[in-house]
Amino acid sequence: MAKLPKFTNVKDVTNLQTWIDEALYLKRNPLVFRKLGSGKCLGLVFFNPSLRTRMSTQRAAQLLGMETMVMNVGSDGWNLEFVDGAVMNGNTQEHIKDAIQVMSQYCDVLAVRAFAELKDRQADYQDKILNAFVEYATVPVVSLESAIGHPLQAFADLITIKEHQTKERPKVVLTWAPHPRALPQAVANSFVEWMQESEVDLVVTHPEGYELAPEVIKGTKVEYDQHKAFEGADFIYAKNWSSYTEYGQVLSQDESWQVTAEKMALTDNGKFMHCLPIRRNVIASDEVIDNSLVIKEAENRLFSAGIVLKKILENI
Amino acid sequence: MAKLPKFTNVKDVTNLQTWIDEALYLKRNPLVFRKLGSGKCLGLVFFNPSLRTRMSTQRAAQLLGMETMVMNVGSDGWNLEFVDGAVMNGNTQEHIKDAIQVMSQYCDVLAVRAFAELKDRQADYQDKILNAFVEYATVPVVSLESAIGHPLQAFADLITIKEHQTKERPKVVLTWAPHPRALPQAVANSFVEWMQESEVDLVVTHPEGYELAPEVIKGTKVEYDQHKAFEGADFIYAKNWSSYTEYGQVLSQDESWQVTAEKMALTDNGKFMHCLPIRRNVIASDEVIDNSLVIKEAENRLFSAGIVLKKILENI
Amino acid sequence: MAKLPKFTNVKDVTNLQTWIDEALYLKRNPLVFRKLGSGKCLGLVFFNPSLRTRMSTQRAAQLLGMETMVMNVGSDGWNLEFVDGAVMNGNTQEHIKDAIQVMSQYCDVLAVRAFAELKDRQADYQDKILNAFVEYATVPVVSLESAIGHPLQAFADLITIKEHQTKERPKVVLTWAPHPRALPQAVANSFVEWMQESEVDLVVTHPEGYELAPEVIKGTKVEYDQHKAFEGADFIYAKNWSSYTEYGQVLSQDESWQVTAEKMALTDNGKFMHCLPIRRNVIASDEVIDNSLVIKEAENRLFSAGIVLKKILENI
Repeated sequence: MAKLPKFTNVKDVTNLQTWIDEALYLKRNPLVFRKLGSGKCLGLVFFNPSLRTRMSTQRAAQLLGMETMVMNVGSDGWNLEFVDGAVMNGNTQEHIKDAIQVMSQYCDVLAVRAFAELKDRQADYQDKILNAFVEYATVPVVSLESAIGHPLQAFADLITIKEHQTKERPKVVLTWAPHPRALPQAVANSFVEWMQESEVDLVVTHPEGYELAPEVIKGTKVEYDQHKAFEGADFIYAKNWSSYTEYGQVLSQDESWQVTAEKMALTDNGKFMHCLPIRRNVIASDEVIDNSLVIKEAENRLFSAGIVLKKILENI
Repeated sequence: MAKLPKFTNVKDVTNLQTWIDEALYLKRNPLVFRKLGSGKCLGLVFFNPSLRTRMSTQRAAQLLGMETMVMNVGSDGWNLEFVDGAVMNGNTQEHIKDAIQVMSQYCDVLAVRAFAELKDRQADYQDKILNAFVEYATVPVVSLESAIGHPLQAFADLITIKEHQTKERPKVVLTWAPHPRALPQAVANSFVEWMQESEVDLVVTHPEGYELAPEVIKGTKVEYDQHKAFEGADFIYAKNWSSYTEYGQVLSQDESWQVTAEKMALTDNGKFMHCLPIRRNVIASDEVIDNSLVIKEAENRLFSAGIVLKKILENI
Repeated sequence: MAKLPKFTNVKDVTNLQTWIDEALYLKRNPLVFRKLGSGKCLGLVFFNPSLRTRMSTQRAAQLLGMETMVMNVGSDGWNLEFVDGAVMNGNTQEHIKDAIQVMSQYCDVLAVRAFAELKDRQADYQDKILNAFVEYATVPVVSLESAIGHPLQAFADLITIKEHQTKERPKVVLTWAPHPRALPQAVANSFVEWMQESEVDLVVTHPEGYELAPEVIKGTKVEYDQHKAFEGADFIYAKNWSSYTEYGQVLSQDESWQVTAEKMALTDNGKFMHCLPIRRNVIASDEVIDNSLVIKEAENRLFSAGIVLKKILENI
């Protein structure tokens, strides 16, 4: 079997600049590819809640003329088993590999959301649900955020930066920000990976103990002094994540890491970004959020998803 | 920005008689406006359960050629914050104003259902969820029932009365009826407001203590003797609501207010109406319901929603 | 009123061979009937969870050009009352007969899933929810599995047998298999009923106490020795069900009834079938399932549903 197209990672992008250009073309002409998806169906499978991703991906599919089906696993369906060879005499009713093979037959593309559980780093970083879809699906698979990545978000972020950059090579800062609960590293991981592939100067800033996975951060500059990191920045991308090293732990809720107008003043007229949902006056102050790109960034989710689906439809 | 069309209240209707005529035309020709909504998307956002409204509004959109997306807030998405300036370090994950701005970008029209909480009259009568949509949405907003009104229902009721009236100016009675739980005043409020704009003689009857809000009832006749109110009536519209004055309280479950065949005999061959869902043999007897307009009334929800969407589509 | 077409039972099939042929034609040409459903809407009403049925039926409708609406009763809507004449002053908010009449007005076809409760045999075998739909709906009704039958599954099973049979009159064995929880008899009942109408030699095998309803089993051969039953079989169809005679009870979890490769060796190169979801290494071993027809069988759910909807659309 020829290898199926998929979208789970920046490595699945054939040409990043072309994809960005096509996304901006789709943004100007949202119905222009409407015939491409005619008679085709996107199945959206949710293991976790979703607002932006649910609506933007569904709408992106509709703009391409596709039909859609939404499956809320758990509330609508069965408890799934993940262990190969399991004797399923307990609470699980269907093996993930059977469910995926079946769903593949009802859809032309499958998109799946499944968060990290933040209990066992090794388990999460194997990205078992997303990889089960890639392994067992007989149709292309799109990540709607997995345990370790959120590539549709990172693609939308990159489109937004391209639209708003005023320098050829802008300084982009990913800053950790406080949050009352433990969150996955998925958004931060993908943001770093996508920026690494782009013409930007990326700096990551966070308290000690919040280092991202080595295979993600690679040679990217880490600056533990948030103020220093913000100096001269063109884009400030805030996000909370729980610790990778002390896996899933909230090591700090240090309010001094909140993004405020005072800190934004250190930047070079820098623009604030966040993937949403954002806890106001925790991650960043109202003032910062109300003068930011966050809403425009969310709009671009339509076009990152749209181009991903377009590329897949052209290759099936 | 030019003011967006919206449908939250009878005041949003430009010409009631024309809208009724168009609804009846759509009823005879349900697919006639199918091109109008092509490539457009209706987002339906539910904070509360719904059967009729969910299905009739979705179908009305489909009949106009629109695509639809359904978002069950809470079960599908995030806990929303409503307080401006809140430090969101508790249970809420996203501010309503961010969620609405984002959803606006994925849909051409947003429709929202959010019931009264019946705890704090002032809070409910500020209609905070619906008004947040009107304030923050960048696309037209349609009420699918809010804390204080249910205009799509009242419009369907009026269409039904127009279809079945035999007199130029029928007598229409809104009667309170008993119910085991506290219900909002939304349906009663909208029914009164829409009848006030119509060529009917409206009488409202209820036990003492169930007076509707003064800004709703205005000069409309209130008759505390249900039997007297029914005399010569052409339409009996039954509905339970909890007290407005002793806000949200169930002051009475007096079974003598149930609508029975004996009481219907006091009318001038009057027709029974109710918005559904109806508790049989509590609000009205089986006999009354089985010889009523309730099912036809529910059918007209398709056409009230259809014309509302048509009017909006023509103005965006 | 002329009798509406419906699909609740093998008796609703006008010509089984023609329907199978048409299903296989649709399988080869999935978009060929796309104009048939244009402007028509299928409402899918779920009282119970569903994956295959939910997705395959929705997709089948889309392939025919229909629009769809999904209603999860309970989570999305109201608590329904089933007793005629009930004084509804308790937990139920709407009578099933009102809900069905209303939903009929918003859809061109209604499909409904409602499982057996396994508490009261007489109640379950009256199939009250499905029959309420047949009685009160004013549009055609399709069973998506009821308390006592799952005809869309049995039809897909029959299509699969026709595709894979190598003899003119294959030997088909329905075997009970162990399961930790009490399951309905619906799938087994329909499988027996559909096989009885087909050119196959049907043998049913199960431990004593698991006899199916006499009105279902009729003259079909029952063999209590599973090994004997398997001898020379062309198809082994496994399914668990709880006891009909000691209604809803799990009388045995005897692991020796699991379908294994050793037992499959007794057959004449027999093919293993199951409706899914299947508990691996409980109902059958991984080895048996991984060399079976179960995924292809699930695919045929698209075409059994497709032809059922096609037949209905042609007759409304």
